[in-house]
Amino acid sequence: MNGFPKHPVFQKIAILGPGLLGGSLALAIRASLPHARVHLWGRREEPLKLAEELDAAHLASTDLELVVREADLIVLATPVGIMPGLIEKILPIIKPSVLITDVGSVKGIVHQTIGQLLTKAGIDFIGSHPMAGSEKQGMTQARADLFKQATCLLTNDEHVHEDTIMALQRFWEAVGCNCIRMRSDAHDSTVARISHVPHVLAALCVHSALTDGDVERLGLISAGGFRDTTRISMGEPSMWAEILIDNAPAITKRLEEALAQLQQVQTLLNNGDKEELQQWLTRVREQRGQALGL
Amino acid sequence: MNGFPKHPVFQKIAILGPGLLGGSLALAIRASLPHARVHLWGRREEPLKLAEELDAAHLASTDLELVVREADLIVLATPVGIMPGLIEKILPIIKPSVLITDVGSVKGIVHQTIGQLLTKAGIDFIGSHPMAGSEKQGMTQARADLFKQATCLLTNDEHVHEDTIMALQRFWEAVGCNCIRMRSDAHDSTVARISHVPHVLAALCVHSALTDGDVERLGLISAGGFRDTTRISMGEPSMWAEILIDNAPAITKRLEEALAQLQQVQTLLNNGDKEELQQWLTRVREQRGQALGL
Repeated sequence: MNGFPKHPVFQKIAILGPGLLGGSLALAIRASLPHARVHLWGRREEPLKLAEELDAAHLASTDLELVVREADLIVLATPVGIMPGLIEKILPIIKPSVLITDVGSVKGIVHQTIGQLLTKAGIDFIGSHPMAGSEKQGMTQARADLFKQATCLLTNDEHVHEDTIMALQRFWEAVGCNCIRMRSDAHDSTVARISHVPHVLAALCVHSALTDGDVERLGLISAGGFRDTTRISMGEPSMWAEILIDNAPAITKRLEEALAQLQQVQTLLNNGDKEELQQWLTRVREQRGQALGL
Repeated sequence: MNGFPKHPVFQKIAILGPGLLGGSLALAIRASLPHARVHLWGRREEPLKLAEELDAAHLASTDLELVVREADLIVLATPVGIMPGLIEKILPIIKPSVLITDVGSVKGIVHQTIGQLLTKAGIDFIGSHPMAGSEKQGMTQARADLFKQATCLLTNDEHVHEDTIMALQRFWEAVGCNCIRMRSDAHDSTVARISHVPHVLAALCVHSALTDGDVERLGLISAGGFRDTTRISMGEPSMWAEILIDNAPAITKRLEEALAQLQQVQTLLNNGDKEELQQWLTRVREQRGQALGL
């Protein structure tokens, strides 16, 4: 375990993956932590060139060793599936005192794979989930203010020292996040509820609205409600398929609830039971109002 | 049937129901058709007083006879359920040349009830559905620009004369709408797809996210995605229960499709079938992009 003196601040930060989150994080660090040195790694040259043009990093390179060597903090901003391979590559060259985190949307699987791998190697790992994505993607969409007012969920299943998680928390706060700590299983069931199931239902809404219909005409007639309800379904399909599969147990549990309720709504509609339907809509409105402080 | 000379413009317009739509329409007419005289009827004094304060109408009264007498155009902006009773009351006092329309969200039932009633009495009726509502309601939320850029669906199942429907179309265009004509059955299946089923799924999303959960904490952690996906679920429950029941046949047909697809998604998640899931999300994204011209 690392104590506070080892991470008073992170001087050298390596970000792996120049996508929306990784690129925005680089820009945010440059804006909010001007004394930190930022290194950015990616497989393709194109987003790295753009990162250089935007002065998002002191070094933007496809050379993994060059990027991670000497880093105090390494942020994995790649798809979860390729993280274990990256960790195996960098383990021989990273500083023993480095803290590694990630920005993945599912945390159980990350702790089960790279969390255990790193702990065995004596390297600190804490999971991070800055809830700041959107349906946009890539370095071209990166913004220095992406994390402003975002909630960042921290999962410390490996019980890394309090001083270290405080240092990570201050890091996320410096780029604009509010941090909440929880175990990875609580994290995964929480985000299934408020992010992953909504994604499925937004996609389902598009499917149900447009399948076997005159798509252009329906789009022309649709209003702001349809647009808002389905916005998040534009998220990158390969990224979202991975998230949904990685968090399948928590998601299917919530979808069981959704399926049962949808069947119940069908019954109310078939029976013309306006009163029950109104009661359900009232409960839903109250719940949402309570949740969002409306 | 009425010919064009009977409705060159509407000089005296009576709006029944001072809610969000009725109140906004009064304000919009005052702003865009300054030579028209606007009368507004409601059951309660309060919204009528507000309408007077906002100069939304030349006459705002609970006296139905006073409001509709001499009107060239009567706009029913009440819940669909109370329209037949209102029509029976006003039939003896309205001008034979008047055109009656409504602003309800379901059109089949309106034509089956008051459409037939008015046609028998020799009075012209055309259905209107300005798609300009929101989760807000009441005269307090009324805005003169509510109809700007909104699509207004016109249903002329009773085959009112072309000149009359053109006059109505120009009226809606004057307050900012783009009009599209269709039969009421096509209307009802279209809005089931792009408005009513999205409403059910937005409510289902709240239900699934918050039921048996720590509502305040979930709300705190939720991000813009949850907020947008569920916004329309805040619509007035009694109004929406009525809409859903009135359009139940078209809605349940689409919900069958949604239920089958949701069960299919469950199967993909249980089987870990990432490829099929990604293909579905890709199709959905393409469909939505095509519909909205993205």
